[in-house]
Amino acid sequence: MFKIVLKTTLVAATTLATLQAGPIIHDAEYNILAAQNGEKWAKEDKSLDDKLAALRKKHGKAPNIIHIMWDDMKYGAIGHPMLNNVTGYVSPNINKIATNGMTFTRMYTEPSCTPTRVAAATGRQPVRSGMIFPIFPIHEMGLPASEVTIAEVLDDDYHTGFFEKSHFGDVEESYLHNQGWDEAIFTMYNQFAGQMFTPTAEAGGMTTGWADDEVSPYALDKEFRPKKWVWAIEGFEGKKGKEISTPVKVSEYHEFNAMAYDRVKKFITKHASADKPFLLDWWPNAIEMFSEENSPKQTPHGSASSESLYRLDKQIGEIVALTEKLGIAENTLIVVMADNGPMQEIWPETYQNPGIFRGGKNDFLEGGVRVPAFAYWPGVIEKGAVVHDIVHVADLFTTFARLGNKMDAIPRDRVIDGIDQTSLLLNGDGHGRRDHVFIYQGANLSAIVKQQYKRHFAGARAGLAGKGFFDLDKDPREEHPQMAQFLWAWPAFDHMKARHEAQIKKYPHTPVTRGEPYTGLELLKER
Amino acid sequence: MFKIVLKTTLVAATTLATLQAGPIIHDAEYNILAAQNGEKWAKEDKSLDDKLAALRKKHGKAPNIIHIMWDDMKYGAIGHPMLNNVTGYVSPNINKIATNGMTFTRMYTEPSCTPTRVAAATGRQPVRSGMIFPIFPIHEMGLPASEVTIAEVLDDDYHTGFFEKSHFGDVEESYLHNQGWDEAIFTMYNQFAGQMFTPTAEAGGMTTGWADDEVSPYALDKEFRPKKWVWAIEGFEGKKGKEISTPVKVSEYHEFNAMAYDRVKKFITKHASADKPFLLDWWPNAIEMFSEENSPKQTPHGSASSESLYRLDKQIGEIVALTEKLGIAENTLIVVMADNGPMQEIWPETYQNPGIFRGGKNDFLEGGVRVPAFAYWPGVIEKGAVVHDIVHVADLFTTFARLGNKMDAIPRDRVIDGIDQTSLLLNGDGHGRRDHVFIYQGANLSAIVKQQYKRHFAGARAGLAGKGFFDLDKDPREEHPQMAQFLWAWPAFDHMKARHEAQIKKYPHTPVTRGEPYTGLELLKER
Repeated sequence: MFKIVLKTTLVAATTLATLQAGPIIHDAEYNILAAQNGEKWAKEDKSLDDKLAALRKKHGKAPNIIHIMWDDMKYGAIGHPMLNNVTGYVSPNINKIATNGMTFTRMYTEPSCTPTRVAAATGRQPVRSGMIFPIFPIHEMGLPASEVTIAEVLDDDYHTGFFEKSHFGDVEESYLHNQGWDEAIFTMYNQFAGQMFTPTAEAGGMTTGWADDEVSPYALDKEFRPKKWVWAIEGFEGKKGKEISTPVKVSEYHEFNAMAYDRVKKFITKHASADKPFLLDWWPNAIEMFSEENSPKQTPHGSASSESLYRLDKQIGEIVALTEKLGIAENTLIVVMADNGPMQEIWPETYQNPGIFRGGKNDFLEGGVRVPAFAYWPGVIEKGAVVHDIVHVADLFTTFARLGNKMDAIPRDRVIDGIDQTSLLLNGDGHGRRDHVFIYQGANLSAIVKQQYKRHFAGARAGLAGKGFFDLDKDPREEHPQMAQFLWAWPAFDHMKARHEAQIKKYPHTPVTRGEPYTGLELLKER
Repeated sequence: MFKIVLKTTLVAATTLATLQAGPIIHDAEYNILAAQNGEKWAKEDKSLDDKLAALRKKHGKAPNIIHIMWDDMKYGAIGHPMLNNVTGYVSPNINKIATNGMTFTRMYTEPSCTPTRVAAATGRQPVRSGMIFPIFPIHEMGLPASEVTIAEVLDDDYHTGFFEKSHFGDVEESYLHNQGWDEAIFTMYNQFAGQMFTPTAEAGGMTTGWADDEVSPYALDKEFRPKKWVWAIEGFEGKKGKEISTPVKVSEYHEFNAMAYDRVKKFITKHASADKPFLLDWWPNAIEMFSEENSPKQTPHGSASSESLYRLDKQIGEIVALTEKLGIAENTLIVVMADNGPMQEIWPETYQNPGIFRGGKNDFLEGGVRVPAFAYWPGVIEKGAVVHDIVHVADLFTTFARLGNKMDAIPRDRVIDGIDQTSLLLNGDGHGRRDHVFIYQGANLSAIVKQQYKRHFAGARAGLAGKGFFDLDKDPREEHPQMAQFLWAWPAFDHMKARHEAQIKKYPHTPVTRGEPYTGLELLKER
């Protein structure tokens, strides 16, 4: 957000007017591609602009955008019953989106929640804003005001709404209504906080980590574990936010989610026939880890993960049906996806199993960062398209800006990792504009993907070509590092890394905002 | 075969007439299901009989059956571009069969070539005929004459043809034209023999295991390695077979395969408008491990496995097109499938990677015995059906007999493992009649599957419930054995095993035929 300067702001907010000189500053690797493909792309862009203009004319406004993104799901669990059947997941409505829309087979995210969400919202890899790990109660940090979100880019040309899990932190400038969204109901942290951070006695069944504190005679510091935290906020742009829920019982957590989902539907209904299009970021609190619902189980996998997905899939079906009922389906892009790979640490025997790829949440392996992802836009996106072009979640930022006819509002004073992938959406397989991904874990560059090749930096031995090279087409589980076959790639990947780092030196990272939490809020009770 | 008694026959062949008293003898576990579902099934069967009779009337004959089965492929590589893209395989024609036909998500085979092929041909798990491992040159053994193949069951009511890889052994009674097929071009062993068993000097590029013998001064026994072996035979029922190819150069191997494929097309064309329907078993010599073709590579995976599948997929497309061109598509069932999981021992870094399931060829894990499988029968099989009922490859035997209206010809003096799955083909998901699989490795019962549960016997600790229990819906990779959750299943699986073993005691196994190889053949040269 950059309209109001909050007292917690460490980086001075800049006005939009000063930012828009020159082209978007991409990472160096994109420039390599643009140099080789720029002429072709320019031609394609002209035709895409014509197409988008024709669509705007037809519908009287730019397209609505619905971005649905949930937690922790492996590639290969959803999209087709052939996958559902062997993984125990049930997702008929998402499968229908795959059949009638587009399936991405190389959608990359960041390896965990906050980082992926920041990349989607800002078009920048989270390392650039210091948002490098999931923020937990009470971290006293959050998304800097100087970051420009997609809601700020689309700005007054769109109605913008955000619902459920932001995970952007607990300082005032990170609140969603302070980051450009007109209307937001958001949780500052993740589902663990919402379900597991309350002492057992009060929680009525929720798991918690600190019941022992209450009884242990050795627990001299009763303040070590977070207690005075706040969870869910309702906010409207320019107004003070309100705490609306900090669950004590698991039932309160479910009530909050149900209420937020209801607001999602109301948001769509309210803006369906408005003069302006809408941007709806619905990042639901799925997975619900402790559920009183779905008894008996509705999915063969029977886990919190599959049961939550079952409920979410049903809701996604309802959202698609709602856009059809309201007559806006043909002017609405819906993107549904997970935010990172499966979390395999909790309840490893049943919660989320590994799939086609090796690794899961927080890994730099494909299993950590390659997610199920689908897009639906009847009449615009080819029915049943399956695209294998590389997409990074940050690309949604730039692509949404293009669709909203607001490329000029993307700031020009910083690196924008997001690449405009409109050509992929509209022209299909082989029309992507990215061939690489820089995979970070926290602040560390752990791996680089270029084309079908991947180099692991994490764990590599310095001083020799090592064995950290993989051909993902041949070895999708990254089980057989190869050396001789990749000696050619040793300098090639070194150069990529050097170019990437030079760009960082030229456009330095913004530090994460640290400050007093929960300011600028009406709280339900004093903390 | 049971029409002519060959001198190598150890078990006396029985005439058909003496066999047909009473119902088919299934394994005990099927009887458990029949007792619970028999009434419903009887009703369903009546309606299925009516449907099949109506189809016979419409087309003037029973349906043609084309069974295409190739080597070593993991579940999850083919059937949809979503899978192709991440595994590097390319299979547009098989994917089209999946889209327009039926996808099986729980098709079980035996864990290796000979066993699976015997199960398909005889409807009996291979342990019952001693065909428990892949037969190699010069094993001097093969399929007993007393086994009754699907070609013998369909008999004179069908034109029966077999092409390419039988793997049924090298004794006279195992030859395909002595086992009921009217016309056969078959290789007695597997592709390794065809491509790798010739000394390097002669082979012109083929890999071999024994070039060293020629030069080592310590190789006193020059006869230890097989040299005087025979590979491919052409045979017509009632006539003496002819050796037609024993490749020395890899080019001869490819020539043989091309010739056999040509004969496949000729067989279909010849019998398309015949009074009788045809059974075509085309079990191609795919994978070709050493190929001069496809240069540059046509598949991202780029392995012998994926390149072979690419060629085979093209041919499968041609076969489907041929049935359409000849106007027989609506009276032809086409089943395409692999014979077991991927072989991970050779060239493990590139040849065949693990997939969704753990394990590969010759494992009792799902990765060894759960294969990609699809069926196509326009107008009869529901378009795009995805069925999760358990099917075992032996079920094809009984199902084909039912479709051919020849259930009476199935012998009644032995256990038939194959369960009639016509209801599944015609009525779709949830209409299967099997809920279990006994998984053998050689002569050992290594695991039992019942519903979504699986118990490993191989490696289990005796005398305690152990930890060998898995819920495949929750843990498809069989990585987290569970104990407390499965204490109920300890006796239940024990009972299954006991019932299975009691049935074996009642109907003992037939020993494999052992004898002089290559009798009853015209050889290309003296051995």
